[in-house]
Amino acid sequence: MTVSTQRIPPQTGAGFELRRGDVLVVIDPQGEQVADLMAFAAEGREEWLSSGRTFDYNETIYLTTGHVLYSNRSRPMFTLLRDDVGQHDFLLTPCSTETFEILYPPGTAEGHPSCFGNLVAAFAPYGIAPDQIPTTLNIFMNVRVDERGRVVIAPPLSRAGQRLELRAEMDLVVGLTACSAEGSNNGTFKPIDYQIIRGQDRG
Amino acid sequence: MTVSTQRIPPQTGAGFELRRGDVLVVIDPQGEQVADLMAFAAEGREEWLSSGRTFDYNETIYLTTGHVLYSNRSRPMFTLLRDDVGQHDFLLTPCSTETFEILYPPGTAEGHPSCFGNLVAAFAPYGIAPDQIPTTLNIFMNVRVDERGRVVIAPPLSRAGQRLELRAEMDLVVGLTACSAEGSNNGTFKPIDYQIIRGQDRG
Repeated sequence: MTVSTQRIPPQTGAGFELRRGDVLVVIDPQGEQVADLMAFAAEGREEWLSSGRTFDYNETIYLTTGHVLYSNRSRPMFTLLRDDVGQHDFLLTPCSTETFEILYPPGTAEGHPSCFGNLVAAFAPYGIAPDQIPTTLNIFMNVRVDERGRVVIAPPLSRAGQRLELRAEMDLVVGLTACSAEGSNNGTFKPIDYQIIRGQDRG
Repeated sequence: MTVSTQRIPPQTGAGFELRRGDVLVVIDPQGEQVADLMAFAAEGREEWLSSGRTFDYNETIYLTTGHVLYSNRSRPMFTLLRDDVGQHDFLLTPCSTETFEILYPPGTAEGHPSCFGNLVAAFAPYGIAPDQIPTTLNIFMNVRVDERGRVVIAPPLSRAGQRLELRAEMDLVVGLTACSAEGSNNGTFKPIDYQIIRGQDRG
């Protein structure tokens, strides 16, 4: 069995389908890069990956190996099988034109690629509207909440070649990005790699 | 000018409209009760109150006086004008049948009222579907995130008569509950009161 590696170029995104039992491997090929992930049920795209249900049932905001990610209907969408990094974010929304307008220096926003825009494009062929995109799982994004509740964004802890493996627990439509925001990846723009290990190939 | 007080009976909810400039006053009449709040733009109900955008732009998970609550389109929906309690939650989803199935003792779920069910009923007359209800602002809910990221739910800090005041920054459809979950309100079920101070009445 050969598993091919797909590369998402810097500041772009990709859309694809997973079948239940498939394993998605998200790899940071160069280190210190973030990949925003969103998923919808293939059967009915009004069912979506929910940060709130996931926090509720896991009783933590930091997700890692063994945790299950839930949909808004409280059904398992993914199980995290392997986590080389141990620090991801599920609090914040994908960077958008408005993110750059509100949080970045004047002039940043115009023409700036964004994870939100890239997810909109990735999901459009599947009939999913921009307003349906909620809080994303921001893989490798290093966001900590301090004791006063402040949200502190630091460079990713991921080193070259480190990965997160997610098993699909239902048939899914997935969007994945190589993050476009300077503040999330230490001022660099890098690619993200991914592999899909099909369930039927794993015996 | 007389402002009437509306009472939401225990384990129920209410739906109503706010105009830009109106102030919604949410009151805990007996203390230690939680009120889940969700809002959609009156003009286009695919625009919704977003925990993720709100965390992003305020750079905190604990919202209080002076903070602005944003929509998924990054537009201000509410400004918090007065907060007597200082501890609310915007991480967790409204309690639902599945919440009681997954997190509570066996047998709890059947026939148990829930904030999710009450919000579904409150929004139905406005053409808003159950799958559109995301993470709610859980007013007076005492949720802390510890240094390891664990989500810890404790009894509300609200005492009888304490309130949160929110000014509507656009025309809104709002759902509000008196929480149905034992674990959120110290095992009691109590009402929630609210007032709407119309913008045009405030001169």
